[in-house]
Amino acid sequence: MATINQNYWNLKESYLFSEIASRVLSYQKAHPDAHIIRMGIGDVTLPLPPAVIDAMHKAVEEMGHAETFHGYGPEQGYHFLRQAIGDYYKQKGVCLLPEEIFISDGAKSDLGNILDILGDNSVLVTDPVYPVYVDTNKMSGRSISYAQANQQNHFLPMPDPHLTADIIYLCSPNNPTGAAYSRQQLKEWVDFANQNDSVLLFDAAYEAFVTEDLPRSIYEIEGAKTCAIEFCSFSKTAGFTGTRCGYTVVPLELVRQETSLNKLWLRRQTTKFNGVPYIVQRGAAAVFSPEGQEQVKHNIDYYRHNAQMITDTLDKLGIWYTGGKNSPYIWLKCPHDMDSWTFFDFLLENAHVVGTPGEGFGSCGEGYFRLTAFSSHEMTRTAMDRFYAILRQK
Amino acid sequence: MATINQNYWNLKESYLFSEIASRVLSYQKAHPDAHIIRMGIGDVTLPLPPAVIDAMHKAVEEMGHAETFHGYGPEQGYHFLRQAIGDYYKQKGVCLLPEEIFISDGAKSDLGNILDILGDNSVLVTDPVYPVYVDTNKMSGRSISYAQANQQNHFLPMPDPHLTADIIYLCSPNNPTGAAYSRQQLKEWVDFANQNDSVLLFDAAYEAFVTEDLPRSIYEIEGAKTCAIEFCSFSKTAGFTGTRCGYTVVPLELVRQETSLNKLWLRRQTTKFNGVPYIVQRGAAAVFSPEGQEQVKHNIDYYRHNAQMITDTLDKLGIWYTGGKNSPYIWLKCPHDMDSWTFFDFLLENAHVVGTPGEGFGSCGEGYFRLTAFSSHEMTRTAMDRFYAILRQK
Repeated sequence: MATINQNYWNLKESYLFSEIASRVLSYQKAHPDAHIIRMGIGDVTLPLPPAVIDAMHKAVEEMGHAETFHGYGPEQGYHFLRQAIGDYYKQKGVCLLPEEIFISDGAKSDLGNILDILGDNSVLVTDPVYPVYVDTNKMSGRSISYAQANQQNHFLPMPDPHLTADIIYLCSPNNPTGAAYSRQQLKEWVDFANQNDSVLLFDAAYEAFVTEDLPRSIYEIEGAKTCAIEFCSFSKTAGFTGTRCGYTVVPLELVRQETSLNKLWLRRQTTKFNGVPYIVQRGAAAVFSPEGQEQVKHNIDYYRHNAQMITDTLDKLGIWYTGGKNSPYIWLKCPHDMDSWTFFDFLLENAHVVGTPGEGFGSCGEGYFRLTAFSSHEMTRTAMDRFYAILRQK
Repeated sequence: MATINQNYWNLKESYLFSEIASRVLSYQKAHPDAHIIRMGIGDVTLPLPPAVIDAMHKAVEEMGHAETFHGYGPEQGYHFLRQAIGDYYKQKGVCLLPEEIFISDGAKSDLGNILDILGDNSVLVTDPVYPVYVDTNKMSGRSISYAQANQQNHFLPMPDPHLTADIIYLCSPNNPTGAAYSRQQLKEWVDFANQNDSVLLFDAAYEAFVTEDLPRSIYEIEGAKTCAIEFCSFSKTAGFTGTRCGYTVVPLELVRQETSLNKLWLRRQTTKFNGVPYIVQRGAAAVFSPEGQEQVKHNIDYYRHNAQMITDTLDKLGIWYTGGKNSPYIWLKCPHDMDSWTFFDFLLENAHVVGTPGEGFGSCGEGYFRLTAFSSHEMTRTAMDRFYAILRQK
């Protein structure tokens, strides 16, 4: 008799975004005239940059003619894109070989799939946390410890010798808190991972939002190549949430049990993956052209301006927050000691603004709230005016 | 200390296609003037149909404007594509709900990933076999039994009460043998799976090549919805090997340990996958338009004509084979009792034609050889003329 993977029974229903949707829907039904502004979901709104559109049109055309048609490509991605990503890392002072870079259909897939090549290891995540780190490990029956993030540590927990683990997840700039580690802080994590022979899974999906002098890749930190795998994505950088492309870096120096994790990952990908569409890889490569870089910078600046509007409003109201400066996420302390869901309802009912209750990302998120900078200038302006009006009065 | 998934140590090096490449390369080096024709790899050569190209250009354009831009889509695929696939199944007399259809980036990914939701089950595959079924199970430490395919059973092994398993893989029309099961034969497999509460993983990637009155979906067989998951792909049908789209059907009736496999798969996909690019899904949907269907039929007929040239040649030479009629693959008995690799070298050296040694697909493939119909008419004609010339003499 076939059995199921019973670890799935231990998963909590991922109710966060469905609960949000249901509360918004019932409010909208009761108040059909309310103009609700959504600042909860981390999806981009600006269209793809013209350089990407041009490259994809060209690639579509190639696929329509026998002489330029592309069938199966290399599972780990075309050399032209891996080379472009390697050049991009050089700007950060990081030297990677093309065979250390694997093109993926997005960071989320690889953050889950990477566990295929690892053993029955203990896992450390931060709390609050991007739920994918937790659920993928629960699915494979691994035990999970939580490093508490809070106002005292500026939502940037540091290594604790009493809290070691075989696999450590870090996301910086962080989803959901927007907090970003300094060079010195990441050095402590890298040293900690190397001392314990842990593998550090570093999620750099928001690296392009960094404005201050902070690391944008874990490999800017000495010693990272012997302990860290980095996941990155074009989703938030270049608007690829619906176009699907990312990349994963597995350094050749990363060895556990005398086995190269790079070789294991290559074996996993060639067996279970057939690569990213040629058209999409051409679009992704265009992100690194001079025009592409300029257009992408323009879009990120647009979102940064939204973030600034949000943090200016919080500053005026004297509300504690992190993020916004190096991240499209702003993580704020709910005013007047409201809990996350009470503040959610308060904001929805009084300002018609939707955000994400921090409690949905873990128990340390209780009493906090996430706003995103991915809306339009106009919407963000209106939302923040309303936000200011209701909280100034209160 | 982080450990690795030690099951990877039990994988054989996937040397088949690299060994072929290396032998071809060294022959070409020694004989620079030899015009080598490749009939080994199962990759298509015709460009994407015009209807698909048009739809993708349109979708690229949509992604370039804020009003028509698409960010995150549903992980299980857009409704327009799932609806179109549902309508396609209706033509085969199969009724599926949209929520039973999951859009994937290709059959290979899902054939591997589906194992995530299943327990530590025993596995039955046929020999010869598509290596992905074997390697993905070895990666997760499952034990594998082999149902022997041979000339006696026309390379279509039937259920054996002494050889039960929790998970059973079938591929029909088959890769690599091209053999296709009849309705009655598949009924026996479905009954066998239901009797044993097995889960049948049915790979229908070549269904569009069926010409005779044979099932093109496992759900044409009564009882299949309580035991079978079907994997299909646009790769060979519509030339999507480099465009990446497929679909997986998990019927709502499929329940094990009182748990819906459809719900488990949805949970897996929403956690570890972010969907197929919008542009690609629009291209895939165009395959089902009236023009798309006509153009795809034209391409398949083109490959069928190649298959006919190959089987005509084998008929003239009196060489035993299967496939070709309902499949782009022709699986032949190596002439003069040569073993697979001896015949490979013989064909390369004397006809400058490259095929795939059957032994690479399993021990029952020893003494057999695979040719594919995915080349051009001209190449196939030339290859078959040479093939005939060297084997008529011998």
